[in-house]
Amino acid sequence: MKPIKAGLLGIGTVGAGTFQVLRRNQEEIRRRAGRGIEVSMVAARNLERARDIVLDAGAAGQCEVVNDPFAVVDNPDIDIVVELIGGYDLARELVLRAIANGKHVVTANKALLAQHGNEIFAAAQEKGVMVAFEAAVAGGIPIIKALREGLAANRIESVAGIINGTTNFILSEMRDKGLDFATVLKQAQELGYAEADPTFDIEGVDAAHKLTIMAAIAFGIPMQFGGAHVEGISRLQAVDIRYAEELGYRIKLLGITRRSSVDGGEGIELRVHPTLIPAARLIANVEGAMNAVLVKADAVGTTLYYGKGAGAEPTASSVIADLVDVTRSATVDPYSRVPHLAFHPSELADLPILPMDDISTSYYLRVHVQDQLGVMADLTRILAEAGISIDAVLQKQPGDKARTDIVIITHQTREKYVNAAILKIESLAAIVGQVVRIRLESLG
Amino acid sequence: MKPIKAGLLGIGTVGAGTFQVLRRNQEEIRRRAGRGIEVSMVAARNLERARDIVLDAGAAGQCEVVNDPFAVVDNPDIDIVVELIGGYDLARELVLRAIANGKHVVTANKALLAQHGNEIFAAAQEKGVMVAFEAAVAGGIPIIKALREGLAANRIESVAGIINGTTNFILSEMRDKGLDFATVLKQAQELGYAEADPTFDIEGVDAAHKLTIMAAIAFGIPMQFGGAHVEGISRLQAVDIRYAEELGYRIKLLGITRRSSVDGGEGIELRVHPTLIPAARLIANVEGAMNAVLVKADAVGTTLYYGKGAGAEPTASSVIADLVDVTRSATVDPYSRVPHLAFHPSELADLPILPMDDISTSYYLRVHVQDQLGVMADLTRILAEAGISIDAVLQKQPGDKARTDIVIITHQTREKYVNAAILKIESLAAIVGQVVRIRLESLG
Repeated sequence: MKPIKAGLLGIGTVGAGTFQVLRRNQEEIRRRAGRGIEVSMVAARNLERARDIVLDAGAAGQCEVVNDPFAVVDNPDIDIVVELIGGYDLARELVLRAIANGKHVVTANKALLAQHGNEIFAAAQEKGVMVAFEAAVAGGIPIIKALREGLAANRIESVAGIINGTTNFILSEMRDKGLDFATVLKQAQELGYAEADPTFDIEGVDAAHKLTIMAAIAFGIPMQFGGAHVEGISRLQAVDIRYAEELGYRIKLLGITRRSSVDGGEGIELRVHPTLIPAARLIANVEGAMNAVLVKADAVGTTLYYGKGAGAEPTASSVIADLVDVTRSATVDPYSRVPHLAFHPSELADLPILPMDDISTSYYLRVHVQDQLGVMADLTRILAEAGISIDAVLQKQPGDKARTDIVIITHQTREKYVNAAILKIESLAAIVGQVVRIRLESLG
Repeated sequence: MKPIKAGLLGIGTVGAGTFQVLRRNQEEIRRRAGRGIEVSMVAARNLERARDIVLDAGAAGQCEVVNDPFAVVDNPDIDIVVELIGGYDLARELVLRAIANGKHVVTANKALLAQHGNEIFAAAQEKGVMVAFEAAVAGGIPIIKALREGLAANRIESVAGIINGTTNFILSEMRDKGLDFATVLKQAQELGYAEADPTFDIEGVDAAHKLTIMAAIAFGIPMQFGGAHVEGISRLQAVDIRYAEELGYRIKLLGITRRSSVDGGEGIELRVHPTLIPAARLIANVEGAMNAVLVKADAVGTTLYYGKGAGAEPTASSVIADLVDVTRSATVDPYSRVPHLAFHPSELADLPILPMDDISTSYYLRVHVQDQLGVMADLTRILAEAGISIDAVLQKQPGDKARTDIVIITHQTREKYVNAAILKIESLAAIVGQVVRIRLESLG
């Protein structure tokens, strides 16, 4: 059987990794796929660097290197376009043009799918081509396949993941070394774990893109990135990591999506924020730049998937797994393929994304008080009046003896009740500054 | 599209779970598969119980209950046969007959596949039908799919798993409560975590069946259960669990399979035995009846898959995922399907399974000595002469002050060197009884 021909758009870190792994393991991959997979064309901004990579992999003469990405998507000899240039506008245009040309697409671009996925999948559906995206979420972990195929028997209840390695690295370092956010971020940048402009990572945007994709395939809903609550770790203080530790918790940046019932109606929680997790949970012990995704589903119960969430070869591993899948399914009638969003397009659900006021979880609240006399009574009264019950309390004197930190862990409640209670707490005369509020998930 | 029709052989725990989950989530599953999946026939030994299950699931009138399993495999209306009766002979006969009748097969029977898989897959290949077996390994964890498809880009280096919940439960209890094996086994039997005849679980046979299957799909080799080293936990002593803990390790029953080079040739390690693992590893913290599989592969690095390894609905989750896969692939030309053993049949490798003498790992050695004067010098001399270097030493007086336990952790070495050294150690006059030898994997 003739090899299938792929064209790469972009040959940066992931592109080069994909090229190299495909070459290195070409025999292994062919023995599995039953057919060779060949990269016969690469579009790159830096032609010289691209030619070096092709040369190093011993593929000179077999792979054309061009500047114009449209030359790849318009090339009639290319069966599969692998989009690895990232970003929104050009990537969208190229992917849509590849689809219009009847080509299958493999992409690692979570931003593109979270924002323009509905348009892209609709176009692919109409053309009868596949858009595969295992590499868009959690790097090398085959979580898309697990959610979409491995757990196909289940009604999925929730997905919670450490899906951004940069922030997990920063949080691990803050906890290990007791350093503050800014110091660790600087180190992470020096070590290459954080980018020069780290906004997308540290403010939770990258995690929210990935979460949006997982929510779509877990619940069979369209991509709704606009509905996601996105909160990063840049305002997280070392003192809260320490107090959480004393109370038996770790703080992680989690992406959480969950079926929820509010006032009788069903909706989907879709939120990224720092989260306290009991230290005994396996996922609380995922350290450094590693990723992990915890899935709860009605038949299987809890399953967890762990691995490298970024990097050239881990991401390439997922890109190539998609290439193998697409190679196998290329001759299959489109209706029999695994649907893009796990459920057939006509079977998607229109569950609303819940506003944050309506989510239910537990909370870590820290108040800084000037004079503690009577304050505890005020705090507990305000919480009791709001119908919020208390799970644990910690009282601390951090350095300055005139002031006291009071930490309260609540039981599960609705966010709007907590927010209302916080406003009342902040109006108390003894309170200094604002209440620190961090959400807590038991993940039990 | 008309529903696809499945016939169940056996409706015990997993069969009933499969029936119930298929009914409960029928809409969810149909929306994914694009086609309904209906169990239209069930063969059961106990007809009354089977009819109750069918009735409870609201399927009376839609599902025929029979005594004779051959009536299912010979029924021309059945598309997929789900074999859940377990055991070897009858299961083999039924599966082969189903295949001969042109039916696809889904099975949870690891014993059958480990022993007769090569014959069964060859027959299926010839007939152009599928034999799917996600439920045969690690219950609800989609590990077969991960190894066979999710990691298709990789040269897989090793697979190490906690793949027997009964033994992991027993080991967790022994460690937590400091109890001995026999006591905990009895409790496990009372709690339903261990069977009345627990031999297959506690002696490692069940784990070796599952490991044999994983080795086949990881490395593209035929099933070679006969080559597996199988060692259970029944002789494990509480004292070694305690000493391991002091040295920073947990003891788990691991199934390990790995590519290995010996004397210039390549081979496969295939072994189940109690294993020390550094306590900091995620997999060392998998407790109770849970399962986890750690995979190392060249591109993706280390990934881990965690979940329930047994039970009605977790296993049903995998059985039904297979039903969905088979439903989707039923119309696909056989060459384009995922090969049974991950690699196309003509592309299997003939790597030998290595004898235990040739495996390489680290060791925990415990010697009980009468008179410690000069013993340490003798021990270290014997190990040094065997070319075995020492990583850690622990000396303990357990109760009886006249006797001492000496524990040595070695660096990685070949098993035959360790065994030779142990013979020499046991011939020392000061040594009481035999040397306790437990293998150690750093899984780093």
